[in-house]
Amino acid sequence: MQEILIQNLNRRIKMDPQKNLMTQLIEHHIFIDHPCNGKGTCRKCRVRLIKGDVTDLTETEKQHLSSRELTEGIRLACLIYPLSEITVETLGKESTCQVLTQGALPEFEFNPSIEKKKIQVQRPSLENQMSMEESLLKAAKAQSLDWELLQQVPSYQEIQTIVCRHGHCYQLEKGDTADQLYGIAVDIGTTTMAVSLVNIRTGAEVGVTSMINPQHRYGSDVLTRITYQIENPKTAVEEMQKTLVEKLEESIINLCQTLHINPAYLYEMTVAANTTMLHTLLGIKAESIGISPYAPAFTMSKELKAAAIGFQKLPAMNIYCLPSVSAYIGADIVAGVFSCQLQKRKETTLLIDIGTNGEMVLSHEGKLSACSCAAGPALEGMNISSGMRAAKGAIEDIEIDSSGIKLKVIENAEPVGLCGSGILAATKELLRSGMVKKNGAFIKKTELEEEHPLYHRLQVNGKKREFLIADGNQPIYITQSDIRQVQLAKGALLSGFYALLDQAGITMDQLDEIIVAGQFGAHLSADHLVKTGILPRETKHKISYGGNTSKTGAYMALMAVDTRKAMEKLAQEIQYKELSTHPNYEKLFRDSLEFPKLED
Amino acid sequence: MQEILIQNLNRRIKMDPQKNLMTQLIEHHIFIDHPCNGKGTCRKCRVRLIKGDVTDLTETEKQHLSSRELTEGIRLACLIYPLSEITVETLGKESTCQVLTQGALPEFEFNPSIEKKKIQVQRPSLENQMSMEESLLKAAKAQSLDWELLQQVPSYQEIQTIVCRHGHCYQLEKGDTADQLYGIAVDIGTTTMAVSLVNIRTGAEVGVTSMINPQHRYGSDVLTRITYQIENPKTAVEEMQKTLVEKLEESIINLCQTLHINPAYLYEMTVAANTTMLHTLLGIKAESIGISPYAPAFTMSKELKAAAIGFQKLPAMNIYCLPSVSAYIGADIVAGVFSCQLQKRKETTLLIDIGTNGEMVLSHEGKLSACSCAAGPALEGMNISSGMRAAKGAIEDIEIDSSGIKLKVIENAEPVGLCGSGILAATKELLRSGMVKKNGAFIKKTELEEEHPLYHRLQVNGKKREFLIADGNQPIYITQSDIRQVQLAKGALLSGFYALLDQAGITMDQLDEIIVAGQFGAHLSADHLVKTGILPRETKHKISYGGNTSKTGAYMALMAVDTRKAMEKLAQEIQYKELSTHPNYEKLFRDSLEFPKLED
Repeated sequence: MQEILIQNLNRRIKMDPQKNLMTQLIEHHIFIDHPCNGKGTCRKCRVRLIKGDVTDLTETEKQHLSSRELTEGIRLACLIYPLSEITVETLGKESTCQVLTQGALPEFEFNPSIEKKKIQVQRPSLENQMSMEESLLKAAKAQSLDWELLQQVPSYQEIQTIVCRHGHCYQLEKGDTADQLYGIAVDIGTTTMAVSLVNIRTGAEVGVTSMINPQHRYGSDVLTRITYQIENPKTAVEEMQKTLVEKLEESIINLCQTLHINPAYLYEMTVAANTTMLHTLLGIKAESIGISPYAPAFTMSKELKAAAIGFQKLPAMNIYCLPSVSAYIGADIVAGVFSCQLQKRKETTLLIDIGTNGEMVLSHEGKLSACSCAAGPALEGMNISSGMRAAKGAIEDIEIDSSGIKLKVIENAEPVGLCGSGILAATKELLRSGMVKKNGAFIKKTELEEEHPLYHRLQVNGKKREFLIADGNQPIYITQSDIRQVQLAKGALLSGFYALLDQAGITMDQLDEIIVAGQFGAHLSADHLVKTGILPRETKHKISYGGNTSKTGAYMALMAVDTRKAMEKLAQEIQYKELSTHPNYEKLFRDSLEFPKLED
Repeated sequence: MQEILIQNLNRRIKMDPQKNLMTQLIEHHIFIDHPCNGKGTCRKCRVRLIKGDVTDLTETEKQHLSSRELTEGIRLACLIYPLSEITVETLGKESTCQVLTQGALPEFEFNPSIEKKKIQVQRPSLENQMSMEESLLKAAKAQSLDWELLQQVPSYQEIQTIVCRHGHCYQLEKGDTADQLYGIAVDIGTTTMAVSLVNIRTGAEVGVTSMINPQHRYGSDVLTRITYQIENPKTAVEEMQKTLVEKLEESIINLCQTLHINPAYLYEMTVAANTTMLHTLLGIKAESIGISPYAPAFTMSKELKAAAIGFQKLPAMNIYCLPSVSAYIGADIVAGVFSCQLQKRKETTLLIDIGTNGEMVLSHEGKLSACSCAAGPALEGMNISSGMRAAKGAIEDIEIDSSGIKLKVIENAEPVGLCGSGILAATKELLRSGMVKKNGAFIKKTELEEEHPLYHRLQVNGKKREFLIADGNQPIYITQSDIRQVQLAKGALLSGFYALLDQAGITMDQLDEIIVAGQFGAHLSADHLVKTGILPRETKHKISYGGNTSKTGAYMALMAVDTRKAMEKLAQEIQYKELSTHPNYEKLFRDSLEFPKLED
């Protein structure tokens, strides 16, 4: 048998001279992008030919590959056919299968709950009248099986594949499908959801996608959504569940299509999310989360079949929901603490997840304590007059100097709004340039001289002041109300920070590291965080970034049962305290509203 | 509060002067038979009034109670109203609630899988934000719960009852229903099925019923039914399952109605049955049981929801199927071995279950070995020209002497057929009187003198001889073919007996006891068993009876989880050997066909 070696992946596949290389890679589930679907025009399927012979260079390739690429042996996989055994390298960021590496990922041993085994049941004899059940268990090296499987047992000698979960056989497939074994790791945030498709056999993240949480229509923060549930007690929970599940399922199915993976080969999904999202995912009322004393319906991890929560196309998929701590310290935070291994750290470390809710977990001398602050969605670009998601046209950074304003816009497009990091940058620059005072109010226009380069930008709309950030076809303003939103968010976060340190009885000096978790937090620079006063100036050099630690935790749970047990234990160990029960919290919050004094 | 004391049950119930005693007993789930439903005519609700005052003797009572009964204080519960606190005793075999006592029932500790607890969830506080899940678990003292329960959680302070199985909460009920806790123990035989309704809280068997296995229409023995499956591969399994489940469910619902028990309070059913019956109950093909090498699809115990096998009115009921050993040593035998505690006996003991299949298990020096013989249904009155079940009009015993034939007929009715014990008795008497020879053939009529009292009874029908047992309106004969059926059954059983002893390397002298198991076997006297040569004459004084040990095992499994584990272990320990693999089995079988020589 002749083979193709994909050197960078250390994979060998059978060579077929009748099929182009791209097709062969796809058939073996080796990810290679191919938007033009084999026309040779998109260049996405480029590979480097290292060894062996393929068909001659085509005119299309000459047209779409640079002379430098041609010298380096780069070819288009969709246009070449192997003539001998070949060695190639797949190229491009998206084109390699790699074990999830974004953010912190501790070393851990893979022991996924799902296993697949090719089996062939031997014929019994009068001397050994082994039952089919026993034969299946022996072949699968498993402890137990779903009795329903016995309604569709294979014939003797027939090759089948058995699927086991936690050592329990629950599915039979015709033929040998043992290497088709995929799973999904999901992070459901209040605002955005991230989905990873993982090859459980190798641990490779073979595809990712993210989307706006469709529950957004019921409110941008969890409290508004809970209010919707309280106002519509008969229909809301089911409706919100359906909305979420349909969107999740659709995006998973689409991801499978893009990757040419049969959705039937998705066996498990692990879910990290905040407590409210987990409640609505399971169709459980989140009402009590929104009303004092904020007791959730559940915090423990959950195992279920996807069909039980309305997955129509993936009914047999198993779901594992990570454990939470309390109403406002969800499984996303447990996942984050675990993926950063906070519980094992000798150094005093704070994990902070900045989102619609801001959650913090402090690890100090082996103890974990947590609090949660209602930051609101301002820092994510929501509830801001010109706010938007971090998409094309979003201003993500701003610099104000004597010559005026410099904008950094995503994809260098015409600016259409401000995303979270842009709002933070704008706040910082308005403070630094003296346009906004420590108390959060814009200065009066009369305080500026007409020659001041920002004079025309500070405007009054009705009774409210606002600041013109960009004056293109679509003028973009920061309003007084926008600044107030940022201020409330920063006050909530900073007061939570102080309260948590206070509870643990430590000073800021004793804090060794701050890990900013979350996909969103990754876009907020340490400079912006301290200059807007979300965190004290003294912590600036202690700040690092964990990436989407929630999804990382979900990935770990997917790949190792041991991590689930560890996270379940961890969730019990994190001590949560309600901020409102902290002594003098009201005063602490008021004090934390003040912006820091900035100097150029 | 005034009370009624039911002295024989040691039960106290609230007294209500407005209701007749029968109604009050029924409302408190105290079993009292009442076929005429309160008309005072059936006498079934008789009670003895021991102390206290009730309404005066009615004309109806005077008419239906004997003067002796009246002297003893016997009254009809449906016609009396308590006037003060009273003490009564319920009468009659069926009217007392008693812990199952038929047959061997070893002492064992109750630890049923199902528990019910009244709960009242305490309101959480800001300092203790306990989740509803945690509160429920704490209240139920359980380890885990079905997440779906969280979709219908009680309000705080509301009284509910939580149902747990193996420490896992899976159901919530409004109000306090903790003492409504019932289960079903079933024995599914090839020919008959027996159902016990058990109060799981007390262990009392509160009702029993039995019925013909409706699968009878697919054949009277398992092989015929399996053949039906082979001939109708697409529909038979499902059809046979449906037939069985519908009948079972109907009889359970009827039993509940009779006992005034809400079927919703039936939480679990334990099933003992032979391997083929268990296969069809679960909708699993029994084909391989009928074809060499006789490997069943499964032998391990099974847990499932009743809905999964088609129970429509009891979908949430849990089902536990006891473990089997092999294709022909089913869970009924495992249950029997366990309920007789064969595995713990110092004495060498043989358990024999005489039914359509005859199964034997030998316990010798701590080892258990088993075999199974295809006896056919003759001994149960099937495949016999005048055969019938043991019901009204069935001849159950026969005596032939010089003056003629004496018949014992069930309920002293006009004889309409022969039940199993009648056939055995007839065979024995025909042998003893010399009408049938050792080889099983009727003597020729010419061998009898015309004056012989049986001369006119020995008749020739076509070419076949037959013997007139009863010559009423409906003459009843034993035919040559009937004798041959009995002979084949006895040959199968006796050869199995010898083979099993031979395998264990013991002689008949070493055998200390033979326990005849099974509801049917209970009707076969030791005298009949040895005189028809089913068992050797030497064993006569060693024979005892176990009753329906299969149902007893199911009852034990219902009342104690520990016994399930013990039976699962036991099923692994019983060594089964296929008789056909025994050396010289064919000769042994032929030798065993000979009837014993009987003398008056």
